[in-house]
Amino acid sequence: MTKPVIHTRIKKVLDSGVMDTDDILATEEPLEVKLIFGPSHNRRQQNITVTMRTPGNDEDLAAGFLFSEGIISSYDAISQLKAVESRDGSAMTVSLKENVIPHLSNNNRNFAATASCGVCGKSDLADIHTGVSVTNGNAHISSATILQLPQTLRVQQSLFESTGGIHAAALFDLQGKLLLLQEDIGRHNAVDKIIGAALREGMFPLDQHLLLLSGRAGFELIQKAAMAGISIIAAVGAPSSMAVQMATAWNITLIGFLREGKFNIYSGAQRVILSS
Amino acid sequence: MTKPVIHTRIKKVLDSGVMDTDDILATEEPLEVKLIFGPSHNRRQQNITVTMRTPGNDEDLAAGFLFSEGIISSYDAISQLKAVESRDGSAMTVSLKENVIPHLSNNNRNFAATASCGVCGKSDLADIHTGVSVTNGNAHISSATILQLPQTLRVQQSLFESTGGIHAAALFDLQGKLLLLQEDIGRHNAVDKIIGAALREGMFPLDQHLLLLSGRAGFELIQKAAMAGISIIAAVGAPSSMAVQMATAWNITLIGFLREGKFNIYSGAQRVILSS
Repeated sequence: MTKPVIHTRIKKVLDSGVMDTDDILATEEPLEVKLIFGPSHNRRQQNITVTMRTPGNDEDLAAGFLFSEGIISSYDAISQLKAVESRDGSAMTVSLKENVIPHLSNNNRNFAATASCGVCGKSDLADIHTGVSVTNGNAHISSATILQLPQTLRVQQSLFESTGGIHAAALFDLQGKLLLLQEDIGRHNAVDKIIGAALREGMFPLDQHLLLLSGRAGFELIQKAAMAGISIIAAVGAPSSMAVQMATAWNITLIGFLREGKFNIYSGAQRVILSS
Repeated sequence: MTKPVIHTRIKKVLDSGVMDTDDILATEEPLEVKLIFGPSHNRRQQNITVTMRTPGNDEDLAAGFLFSEGIISSYDAISQLKAVESRDGSAMTVSLKENVIPHLSNNNRNFAATASCGVCGKSDLADIHTGVSVTNGNAHISSATILQLPQTLRVQQSLFESTGGIHAAALFDLQGKLLLLQEDIGRHNAVDKIIGAALREGMFPLDQHLLLLSGRAGFELIQKAAMAGISIIAAVGAPSSMAVQMATAWNITLIGFLREGKFNIYSGAQRVILSS
């Protein structure tokens, strides 16, 4: 497997001239997720998706993707995760237990495109709600705790520091303790890696946790977090219109522009306790 | 059609307390691209992709997508572009002239996923090269001109200013004149809108142009620019490993971290003239 960063030679152009120097790039490579399922007398294999990801934690990425897309409903569904390297690239083969039926039927068209938009192949908002339970959690977090999260994330973000080109997703408890951190060139992959790791480590349910995103909050991230039952999401960047629309519909607390000692609450303000 | 930005009410939390205020969100909504083609006695319709985009210039987005994915090879292939609004969302129907055969055969699996990664469904780098001609252009641009581009872009970026959450792509001539600017919540959409607009306005070939990206340069943007024959790409943010790999293979000049009076050249340095 390729490393998460790659060294390269560049020409750096400055006012004062040009110099040859080293630079570090975030690795971007395809990973195919293949599913093996069915009873022993009729095992089948199906290609589920190809995602451009930064190598590392591929097992968590595959498991998290299958869960956040509603294809499996627990980590216990999986009997084996196996990385396969071939001339054609990297794949992760996910074998389900014989008695587990993956939820593939209605969404077949969706999967190939999910990495892009979280909604591809679904025709309207009613379809998008499928699989998400509206959160009614009693989680609360103080504004002072929220304000500290980006700094906690930043000191742990090793890949971003070196490449300047990678997204992070992190899971915190409601006292502001960092529990999980994942970095990836695709923000949806970083969230899937978090969900996969939380499943593997038996951390569910996640209704007393906060998901922090290092960049902007597009709709597909809200959808994935909602599938995992996370009721508070904070983004350092801007949310999109559909992110706000969905967070509101699912009773998720959505915070944006969390930086420089302030933040905006777009939905679910009742979970934020203003501390002086 | 929804507007490119949406107004919403938020709670802004600051050190000094909380206030209710207005905020502006970048609109994120699905657009389906449908293709109608074939001879009059056997017209067929095929759904090509669904992309999450910021409404606006949807005709250019659809035409640019079909071109940058190699489905059509000229704007002249199109007989009609028609926006269709329904209960299920927005669609753009692209009718091809009767004698035009779209290139759908090998890539069928790819299209649904392209908005995500530009490579989904393609199994190795050899496949990815399909349709791209290696650039051998004699384009040159001075470092002084390159350094001025971000400022030129910034003063024109109206949506980003208001939402903080939108990408821009811009086409410049080699003297640094801004020719086209598009903004979208998806960076691949912004590039497709540029390519579609350039096709519509008869600006091809683009080998004497520069494509500027307001954010990072992932592989799929290099692929799209390469399909359009653009030989110089500059990004304000970081390039990915695969972006550099492909730009090198296709003899494209790739510039990254173009900001604060400096930039890095990752490939094709011969096209940059160092000016004092």
